Amino acid sequence: MQNKIEEEKKITKSARHPENFVRVFALGGLGEIGRNMYVIEYKNRIIIVDAGLRFPEEDMPGVDYIIPNIKYLTENKDRKKVLAIFVTHAHFDHIGAISYIADKIGNPPIYATPLTKALILKRHEEFRGATPLNVIELKKNDSVKIEMFNIETFHQNHSVFGSVGFVIKTPVGNIVNTGDFKFDMNPIGDEPADLSRIAQIGQNGVLLLMQDSTRAESPGFSLSETTIQTNLEEIFRIAKGRIIVSTFGSLLTRIQQIITLSEKYDRKVLIEGRSMISAVEIAYKLGYLKIQKDTLIKKDRLMHYPKEKITILCTGAQGEPDAVLMRIVNKDHKYIKIEPGDAFVFSSSVIPGNERAVQALKDALVRDGAIVFHNQMMDIHSGGHAHKEDLRMMLALLKPKFFMPIHGNFTMLAANRDLAISMGIKPENTIIAENGQVLKLYKDKIILTQERVPTNFVFVDGLGIGDVGNIVLRDRQTMSKDGMFVVITVIDAKNGQIKDEPDIISRGFVYLKESQKLLDDTRARIRNLVHSHIRENGTINYTYLKNLLRDELGKFLFKRTHRRPLVLPVVIEV
Amino acid sequence: MQNKIEEEKKITKSARHPENFVRVFALGGLGEIGRNMYVIEYKNRIIIVDAGLRFPEEDMPGVDYIIPNIKYLTENKDRKKVLAIFVTHAHFDHIGAISYIADKIGNPPIYATPLTKALILKRHEEFRGATPLNVIELKKNDSVKIEMFNIETFHQNHSVFGSVGFVIKTPVGNIVNTGDFKFDMNPIGDEPADLSRIAQIGQNGVLLLMQDSTRAESPGFSLSETTIQTNLEEIFRIAKGRIIVSTFGSLLTRIQQIITLSEKYDRKVLIEGRSMISAVEIAYKLGYLKIQKDTLIKKDRLMHYPKEKITILCTGAQGEPDAVLMRIVNKDHKYIKIEPGDAFVFSSSVIPGNERAVQALKDALVRDGAIVFHNQMMDIHSGGHAHKEDLRMMLALLKPKFFMPIHGNFTMLAANRDLAISMGIKPENTIIAENGQVLKLYKDKIILTQERVPTNFVFVDGLGIGDVGNIVLRDRQTMSKDGMFVVITVIDAKNGQIKDEPDIISRGFVYLKESQKLLDDTRARIRNLVHSHIRENGTINYTYLKNLLRDELGKFLFKRTHRRPLVLPVVIEV
Repeated sequence: MQNKIEEEKKITKSARHPENFVRVFALGGLGEIGRNMYVIEYKNRIIIVDAGLRFPEEDMPGVDYIIPNIKYLTENKDRKKVLAIFVTHAHFDHIGAISYIADKIGNPPIYATPLTKALILKRHEEFRGATPLNVIELKKNDSVKIEMFNIETFHQNHSVFGSVGFVIKTPVGNIVNTGDFKFDMNPIGDEPADLSRIAQIGQNGVLLLMQDSTRAESPGFSLSETTIQTNLEEIFRIAKGRIIVSTFGSLLTRIQQIITLSEKYDRKVLIEGRSMISAVEIAYKLGYLKIQKDTLIKKDRLMHYPKEKITILCTGAQGEPDAVLMRIVNKDHKYIKIEPGDAFVFSSSVIPGNERAVQALKDALVRDGAIVFHNQMMDIHSGGHAHKEDLRMMLALLKPKFFMPIHGNFTMLAANRDLAISMGIKPENTIIAENGQVLKLYKDKIILTQERVPTNFVFVDGLGIGDVGNIVLRDRQTMSKDGMFVVITVIDAKNGQIKDEPDIISRGFVYLKESQKLLDDTRARIRNLVHSHIRENGTINYTYLKNLLRDELGKFLFKRTHRRPLVLPVVIEV
Repeated sequence: MQNKIEEEKKITKSARHPENFVRVFALGGLGEIGRNMYVIEYKNRIIIVDAGLRFPEEDMPGVDYIIPNIKYLTENKDRKKVLAIFVTHAHFDHIGAISYIADKIGNPPIYATPLTKALILKRHEEFRGATPLNVIELKKNDSVKIEMFNIETFHQNHSVFGSVGFVIKTPVGNIVNTGDFKFDMNPIGDEPADLSRIAQIGQNGVLLLMQDSTRAESPGFSLSETTIQTNLEEIFRIAKGRIIVSTFGSLLTRIQQIITLSEKYDRKVLIEGRSMISAVEIAYKLGYLKIQKDTLIKKDRLMHYPKEKITILCTGAQGEPDAVLMRIVNKDHKYIKIEPGDAFVFSSSVIPGNERAVQALKDALVRDGAIVFHNQMMDIHSGGHAHKEDLRMMLALLKPKFFMPIHGNFTMLAANRDLAISMGIKPENTIIAENGQVLKLYKDKIILTQERVPTNFVFVDGLGIGDVGNIVLRDRQTMSKDGMFVVITVIDAKNGQIKDEPDIISRGFVYLKESQKLLDDTRARIRNLVHSHIRENGTINYTYLKNLLRDELGKFLFKRTHRRPLVLPVVIEV
């Protein structure tokens, strides 16, 4: 539901140009990880930055993805218009919702650098029958004029090539959205961030900085990929068997490192995992990845090389059930079996919630004689996000007047805000907003209004988008904890008596074959309840009887088992 | 199932005293975190070290605890006898199974230091009607003779007072079980580990060392509690409002630190949370906790002190749904509300699997204006476990002939084994066993036999112990992902036709009110299936028809939704 627009009174009182403001808000990405989507609106003309998905939490069983709620954009009042979507980089938390929402918001042009474009289009292939996307290529340093907006790009270092930040020049002032970034003066296969250009943007004046908060709680500088490379090289130096590196399919900078090291140490590289194969193909074709022409091999060539000449790059470092690494561990993989002396390298962070699955993978590998290298042992992964000192650098270069932390949980937003204050931005010029909370950005002030646009979760589950809600999730949770218990009572219409024995169907509650006594007692309890209901009322009130059975059987089963299955009574009159 | 005893041939060939060996194995605690339980057996006489529980994984919904399988101990063949249980310390992963198993293995005497004893008995109060436990008090340096065994205790530093290791002197040689430990030369409210005594044990000869592996992957030394205290003091120095510290109820060393600091900074302390209150009461009575007499206050006194004079110690740092901290955050707590300026201190590690719940807590606190301190920001928690260098120290002091890593996941066991080898123990003298895998320990060799005793999980769920198995869990998982779908078809016995419309009950699948078309189509599909079944067979084969409905409706629903609910067909003949 959309709250009524209630602006704080002081705005209209103090503003000299009451109409000259930009509305800024997030449909996702504030107070949460992922589902990044930011709206910049001037007089009903809208520029969107990113449209990503997030992955479900543990209390959302069965949900595949969560995408932003676009109700605000699809309501056609006030002749709102989405002019364009600008995409900072190719990760799913920034591009993953595009194919779900583009046609619903009028298929606006989508601006992205070549790799980002290619991965957006690759993803869109999975949406058969969907309207084609209109993706327009951006250069690293580009400038696009759309109505009253002028959007410029600037190169950023991140864990995928072709990452950019945006300067969105509005009639009120310049807004910078950093996208995901870190400063890396020694990146691998990429150019360092262009500090001079970023400084120039700062010199031209930044009214509002929207800055990545993901690692705002981490002290110091982010690690350079060159440091990571040095540590990874140590593994290549000592490994006597195969090296099997698992990481995200989209972590292309890491993939470049592994390929370069393999070439240096005379190893052939096999890429395994659909998402990684297609990302590598695309990035190679576009010239982002540098690969010598005989480095990559196909699976049928694997047997032709000695172990110490093989590197395998694969997906599954998060313990995903269907990814390559899990299939190797479960001995389900067709041609990669664990061999003693294999060096398995986990070169990625563990996404919160996956820790136990990843530990189980490592355990299984060590059990089978493999050697496991992971990030807790040595720095063989660095995230793509700015730490405290990188964030301070960006603030020092851009010198924004107003500051809004984006991307990340609330504690991260707060830590980023505190950094901005420590760099001299006035506390009242920093704003932590919630998703959907509308900011009004004026030349000389920023106001957190009371207006909230809808941002509640839209769940994607199988083919359904938005058809799974809280009730369905609550039932799934109840059943996952204590199962369900259906009782079917057939009543003879002629005499109002129970026909035969009540049927009981239960799953996930107790092991039925060993609970005969409990079932017998439950049936007796059902007969009792029905009979006394008939005795007291003379006739059957079906709704009342069903509620009675649900409540009383729920209590009865809890007393006997201390479990609370979902009790579903069915009463059939024949 | 128990494997048949199949010893490796070489044993009987080479052993000069084939009967003179000790059988050593784990019923839990190898390749897993928690559920620690170790068996030391000589000629059917058994000493047990610890009997703990572990907490369920994500794929075990609804399960409360997992306890060791004691089938081996309860089978009465060979006149086996459990002589005693020796308990290293008071944590639930070492004591939590005692009340479930003691009477099943003949209520053996349980040996424990005073605090451990008190907490075992406290826990046992929850088992109404259970046989009383026979717990015998151990001193820090004690010696107990039981038949052919002689058990000595030695003091260990850990995160709960009264922690000890055991030297179990057997006719074959001395076995040391370290329990959970770290070396802390500067502990708070406790004595440092007695290096001289441990060295003495080493000088007397250690045949087998069973050593804590929990942090064997962590480099360096564990942090001293004095370092933690210094960092915590910084918070007390700067905090202007209340300080609210959440930690484990059983982390008594940390509780001592907070109390001592509160006294130094003139703050009163309120303890909140049932488990923490009872642990503090018990530890105070036994003299482990040092508390000035007017430091602790009751809740009704809270309002009588200014904010800067209050410390609250509470449970819930793991994001547990019913603990104090969650109730505060959910605004369900009766008299503790979040106030701007409150300093919330998370002084515990986050147990894998709880990361997201804990992050949500922190977000909610910061959102409401509180300041949050946690371990990623500064060292305000140190675990109770030895890091690599502590483990090397223990190895250097004890100089065991044989080495067996215990406590922890497989990668941790392997890392601990590698440490032992790096300290000069011959690789062939180190053994990584799985739970239930029987070792034979001779004077001059150690053999990993092929014998396996049963160690499969025993689930505790509500009042049920062991009645939830894999089938029940699998159903719970299926229903948690895609819900369930019950179809009830009533067949008229007189004419073999469907009476009325088939009934559909579904939960956790789709939002039914918005899926009328799907339900109508499903009903049509059911009628179709039943009619063609009758047409083809002339009569109804109920089992066959139910299977047909299950399979066909499953396919139909998947095609329409890409979800796979648990389909349960009911066919009733009236």
